[in-house]
Amino acid sequence: MIDVLNDEYYMSLAIQMAAKASGQTGINPAVGCVVVKDGRIVGIGTHLKRGEGHAEVHALKMAGSEAQGATVYVTLEPCSHHGKTPPCSDLIIHSGAARVVVAATDPNPVVSGTGVNRLREHGIEVSTGLMEEQSHALNEKFNKYIATRLPFVTLKTASTLDGKIATEQGDSKWVTGSVAREQTHTLRHQHAAIMVGIGTALADDPQLTTRAAVPAIHPVRIIVDSKLRLPLGARVVRDKTAPTIVLTTEGADSEKRRLLQEAGVEVIACGDGPSVDMRAALQELGRMEIGSILLEGGGKLSGAMLDQGLIDKVVLYYATKFIGGASAPQNIALPGRAYMSEAIQLERVQVEMAGEDICVTGYPGYGKG
Amino acid sequence: MIDVLNDEYYMSLAIQMAAKASGQTGINPAVGCVVVKDGRIVGIGTHLKRGEGHAEVHALKMAGSEAQGATVYVTLEPCSHHGKTPPCSDLIIHSGAARVVVAATDPNPVVSGTGVNRLREHGIEVSTGLMEEQSHALNEKFNKYIATRLPFVTLKTASTLDGKIATEQGDSKWVTGSVAREQTHTLRHQHAAIMVGIGTALADDPQLTTRAAVPAIHPVRIIVDSKLRLPLGARVVRDKTAPTIVLTTEGADSEKRRLLQEAGVEVIACGDGPSVDMRAALQELGRMEIGSILLEGGGKLSGAMLDQGLIDKVVLYYATKFIGGASAPQNIALPGRAYMSEAIQLERVQVEMAGEDICVTGYPGYGKG
Repeated sequence: MIDVLNDEYYMSLAIQMAAKASGQTGINPAVGCVVVKDGRIVGIGTHLKRGEGHAEVHALKMAGSEAQGATVYVTLEPCSHHGKTPPCSDLIIHSGAARVVVAATDPNPVVSGTGVNRLREHGIEVSTGLMEEQSHALNEKFNKYIATRLPFVTLKTASTLDGKIATEQGDSKWVTGSVAREQTHTLRHQHAAIMVGIGTALADDPQLTTRAAVPAIHPVRIIVDSKLRLPLGARVVRDKTAPTIVLTTEGADSEKRRLLQEAGVEVIACGDGPSVDMRAALQELGRMEIGSILLEGGGKLSGAMLDQGLIDKVVLYYATKFIGGASAPQNIALPGRAYMSEAIQLERVQVEMAGEDICVTGYPGYGKG
Repeated sequence: MIDVLNDEYYMSLAIQMAAKASGQTGINPAVGCVVVKDGRIVGIGTHLKRGEGHAEVHALKMAGSEAQGATVYVTLEPCSHHGKTPPCSDLIIHSGAARVVVAATDPNPVVSGTGVNRLREHGIEVSTGLMEEQSHALNEKFNKYIATRLPFVTLKTASTLDGKIATEQGDSKWVTGSVAREQTHTLRHQHAAIMVGIGTALADDPQLTTRAAVPAIHPVRIIVDSKLRLPLGARVVRDKTAPTIVLTTEGADSEKRRLLQEAGVEVIACGDGPSVDMRAALQELGRMEIGSILLEGGGKLSGAMLDQGLIDKVVLYYATKFIGGASAPQNIALPGRAYMSEAIQLERVQVEMAGEDICVTGYPGYGKG
């Protein structure tokens, strides 16, 4: 397809840049910026790390004096407040830019529009809304966290077309292929934490690190383990690649808790019931500034969290095969609804091949049947 | 996308025409033909009905004297034998056409190539293989039947993303949406017969007819009913929209058999075991010139047939929702394999949205894990 030279031509580049860096900005949004003068790109930038320069800072620095009279394309409304860095709207004003094109305004209702207004007050032409949906999609994790202080939870599963993650005998090698696995490691890179149930941790002794063709970011590892059954010899305890958090209950053995803590694991008790109170757990993880979690099963934990409305997005890989077996473990062991109208319906569904497997993405629309 | 004017420009039209008529040619192949002279289409044709003119007959008739020196695009090798109609290769020779472009040669090894050779012997330039794959796909039902005399079986399911066709309480209204339902009726139009298990027939008392926005062909209705539990008052017995066949076992009640036959139902006993011998049943249906069957469940029949390698193609609709419940009925109740390497693997998988639902198509590759 041949591109058309217009505002979208540049905004799409800004969005692509932001997308590529979206795994490395922590609880900050991913933002891209392109500065264009007299038909030429004179500066590009993207937010690279929390606490460091925003996208506009990088792009305007690259543009230098060329910013005078230029158009600035930015995927998110420039900030107007003094945070960890000076306000970007002031920076744009001082740069002499003539026009600013904004994809999405700030999702925080308290400051939304203030950056745009500030630019306009200084005579800069501002338009908003171009590729707004793509910008929102880019920052779906940030937008939830900033509004609720709860991490955005993405559930990832990999099953056969009949929904099984292993055979009745427990064989699970292999369900999906290399492309799905590569994509999964990319998802790990793009989330602040990775979460699994104790069943998965015991069955596979997984590392829960990010393995890719190039160096990547390892997420914080979270094990949901109501009875503290995680062995001290588990790889997530022994190796120090990334921090490990164990979520448990008040009733868990205090000696085992002490041993895990001595081994460097953070143990957090959530509720005094038989299972970990996942809603309380997410609140606590949010307080720890974990803005996003990739939930990788098993089926029981995933089913329980979906049942409680705690999952924001699903990424479901289906290997194109059937393994059968009524008792073979399910990708999502959701407690059964009585009526079809009570189903948990996915919204904004997309489907495509991921190598030889099928990849379905969507957003659970709770309580809408 | 802008078309490119070349041989494929015309062959793709021939294939589209054949595809549209593919439901109406019985055990004959779907074939399309386009005749082109001096840069203009002068004749088009497609095989419309078994026993009537082949695609070339229609197209050359339309072309008349314009066929002299023309190029003939045809999706399947012109026949060289006297069947229900005179050989098309002779017709082309007599028409004075200068060049013939063939997508696929005849799938019957006994006659494959003879039509092409005959044309060449008469000085006509022939090329083969253009869009061969699409032509094969068009005639996948015919190609199996002609080679094996067994009907081509397409399994169609409609489930939630966790593979359930109803809730634990049996509620199944509704799983998939209107587009999936419209497509299903189109599949019925394109198959010679529709098959369901007795469980489905008893639960839903379905008509098993083709309902579309325009008049359509009703397939023969086949009920798999080992114990002849089908009530005489069932819609497939009472209404005479299409013939109904009941497949049963030698041990089934002979009085009930007589009553069904009196009601106009054809009853065929396949094997003396507790279940219908489906392999024998397909042989018998093939002898009756039923070249293709759309299998619409339930899960047990589908699972058993998949287990026995009797399903050629699957069309799996997934509503983008989760209903849960370990005992909720499954789209395909396949007996469990012990090892992941023993899975029934789909080949040539395609996936796309069908309205709000997901549609997966593929071909089971038995014994390849």
